[in-house]
Amino acid sequence: MSSLPPLRVGLLGLGTVGGGTIAVLRRNAEVISRRVGRSIEVVAASARDISKPRAFDLSGIELYADPAELVLQPQVDVVLELIGGTTVAKDLVLLALENGKHVVTANKALIALHGNEIFEVAQRTDTVVAFEAAVAGGIPVIKATREALAGNRIEWLAGIINGTCNFILTAMSEPGCEFETVLAEAQALGYAEADPAFDIDGIDAAHKLTILAAIAFGVPLQFERVYVEGIRHISRADVEYAERLGYRIKHLGMARQVADGIQLRVHPTLIPVSQLLANVDGVMNAVMLHSDAAGSTLYYGAGAGAEPTASAVVSDLVDVARTGDADRVNRVPPLAFQTGSLSELPIVSMDAVETAYYLRLHVLDQPGVVADVTRILGASDISIEAILQQESEHGAATVPIIILVHPVVEHAMNQALAEIEALPQVHEPVIKIRMESLA
Amino acid sequence: MSSLPPLRVGLLGLGTVGGGTIAVLRRNAEVISRRVGRSIEVVAASARDISKPRAFDLSGIELYADPAELVLQPQVDVVLELIGGTTVAKDLVLLALENGKHVVTANKALIALHGNEIFEVAQRTDTVVAFEAAVAGGIPVIKATREALAGNRIEWLAGIINGTCNFILTAMSEPGCEFETVLAEAQALGYAEADPAFDIDGIDAAHKLTILAAIAFGVPLQFERVYVEGIRHISRADVEYAERLGYRIKHLGMARQVADGIQLRVHPTLIPVSQLLANVDGVMNAVMLHSDAAGSTLYYGAGAGAEPTASAVVSDLVDVARTGDADRVNRVPPLAFQTGSLSELPIVSMDAVETAYYLRLHVLDQPGVVADVTRILGASDISIEAILQQESEHGAATVPIIILVHPVVEHAMNQALAEIEALPQVHEPVIKIRMESLA
Repeated sequence: MSSLPPLRVGLLGLGTVGGGTIAVLRRNAEVISRRVGRSIEVVAASARDISKPRAFDLSGIELYADPAELVLQPQVDVVLELIGGTTVAKDLVLLALENGKHVVTANKALIALHGNEIFEVAQRTDTVVAFEAAVAGGIPVIKATREALAGNRIEWLAGIINGTCNFILTAMSEPGCEFETVLAEAQALGYAEADPAFDIDGIDAAHKLTILAAIAFGVPLQFERVYVEGIRHISRADVEYAERLGYRIKHLGMARQVADGIQLRVHPTLIPVSQLLANVDGVMNAVMLHSDAAGSTLYYGAGAGAEPTASAVVSDLVDVARTGDADRVNRVPPLAFQTGSLSELPIVSMDAVETAYYLRLHVLDQPGVVADVTRILGASDISIEAILQQESEHGAATVPIIILVHPVVEHAMNQALAEIEALPQVHEPVIKIRMESLA
Repeated sequence: MSSLPPLRVGLLGLGTVGGGTIAVLRRNAEVISRRVGRSIEVVAASARDISKPRAFDLSGIELYADPAELVLQPQVDVVLELIGGTTVAKDLVLLALENGKHVVTANKALIALHGNEIFEVAQRTDTVVAFEAAVAGGIPVIKATREALAGNRIEWLAGIINGTCNFILTAMSEPGCEFETVLAEAQALGYAEADPAFDIDGIDAAHKLTILAAIAFGVPLQFERVYVEGIRHISRADVEYAERLGYRIKHLGMARQVADGIQLRVHPTLIPVSQLLANVDGVMNAVMLHSDAAGSTLYYGAGAGAEPTASAVVSDLVDVARTGDADRVNRVPPLAFQTGSLSELPIVSMDAVETAYYLRLHVLDQPGVVADVTRILGASDISIEAILQQESEHGAATVPIIILVHPVVEHAMNQALAEIEALPQVHEPVIKIRMESLA
């Protein structure tokens, strides 16, 4: 079909995604080389224990016990890093780049935490680092942001980028499904780890948001500046009240360019049910980008899993097969913007972020409480969009009051909440969930 | 920022999209050149009447009365064809390619009808033809299909790819909004042409489907083989019954690879409300692709409009700026597959297509009618999923019966319907709308 030599891949890590990538490259070898004009072959692999029996066929692949030895093999054109973590993986990626090998990785933590350094080395050694699989699995949101929206100024992005959180929040809309019950179900199904903190506390989403924001706004990777909130404090009651008011609670990664810089935040968010994002259910992911020319575009698909992630990995390998040997001007820069063209826009402190809020208060069932609460909000110039006052449940001393307020700066909201929580009739801390119209 | 010369664009056609493209390239010049490493500038333009006053600034752009003269200017690197139609536009595109100029176009009819010939010339003259804006406006579905899913075998795709049809079908869910009323509203809002046939009879969607199917399955462009049905025969009653049964009616372009070839079809379709596609409302577009590795991915956005279309045009110009001067191996082939690697899979005749159906019958309100109808379906091995029998309206001699049937080959369905329509108690032809689970 073509006289071009195959692209030879050295695979680091023989876990689920590694197996998926080998399977996809083999099963679809014919269609891939019809598209690319050359074949893509895994010629070498390494893993912690290369003698361990595996569910996938490794015939024709040279196995290395030492990953560094694999990286340095002359027959390896591109190193596919699927080890995970940020120590060994980082050393091997840098070793590959220093030795003129291109790198494809699915490692979001590595890119979010060490991407700036990695891309500098790649720039110096004229190599490609590709990482579509690091964000939202099989959804080509990095390609869309870096290439398809290249003519746009991106104004904001909002993504459901952690399948575990979305599975849990979706399931919590069913009667009787409290957070702990659903988490256990997610663990049984393999959608949550035994230690689920990384997902449900928002760290994983923050890694992905860091990457998305960098390529959207042309700022350096700044994981340490992301405001991160997980979903442990969301209760079924909130999911239900939200639905009654026309909203769903989604765990979103959001980045927005505002007058004083870039907002970077990961937190549960009420969004209108009429928004497509509100209808992304279960473990599925989706990212919405709002940009000045294209308006709102949305990208939806499986955010994890062996083959969806392999799909993204192979798409990166295809790009390397096409432009890895070309001049740098023929390639898309890793962070979408040319080296030296990144912006120094500051990251906005969370205190200064303006959003609407959903508030849930538990108050003594006495006259005058609502008047006190609304007086405090009014004194802080916080304007109320809706109030939902529930009947007290039989025998309960307190009643829930749900208040939706129009956008207000976080700092002002927190001050008003401190005053409200000091009222003698207000029991328990106020539940506060941010709201976004995504309009 | 860069020592690379600007990419110089010659613009044919100064309509809405031309104006939008000039505006986007100017407004976002800084961010575009930070991304691409070179600037993209419209240096020349032509239009039927170059002296006509326009709402956008043409300063710095050399105007040509004769578009062929513009095409041949040595300072033009890439010709942007925004004239529309398939006669003059075709001649100018071929002239550009023959003279070594790259071409970017938003012209779906041109690509769908003459793409095979155009790509042959581009192959011979080593030029790029890019056409992201030809399908679904600002949604990068061509880039996603050609590049992001390059490791996948695509199994099927289904798209809401005509905003006029989607606006009308969405609006028809409101009480009192019959087809004709809503069409008039769409015309008043500028969402439908004075002569709306091109959109509402499905021709426009068929052009786009032709292109999508070619790049998804690696088959030549075959517009003449697309089965096309519009939305004129859809009534509010059907929209309402569908909703009651858990479905929405969307005008879909669908392509599917089956054992005996490729299905290419454009028609109204009932899809489950739980599907994201069912929740794509108004003039918005979305395309869902199902492929073996990535699973289902969906791409959503504005399918038309000056700036969304300009976003796609500029993304193509960016790709030309990056790889127009590179070797062919560094570029993505126009139809996703390398020249000479297209498949000869046949297009399946509509008679042989298997789908589920929604049927609406008007029958005399007499005992035994349902038994007769179900007997005929049963004799044809057509199995029933649901029956909805309505009370007769006051004074009406006939009652509507809605029947959903499980997938059956179109030919068998039509034979059974002929028998049913021959029953004396069945009045009016049976309304038949295809159904897809998209699972």
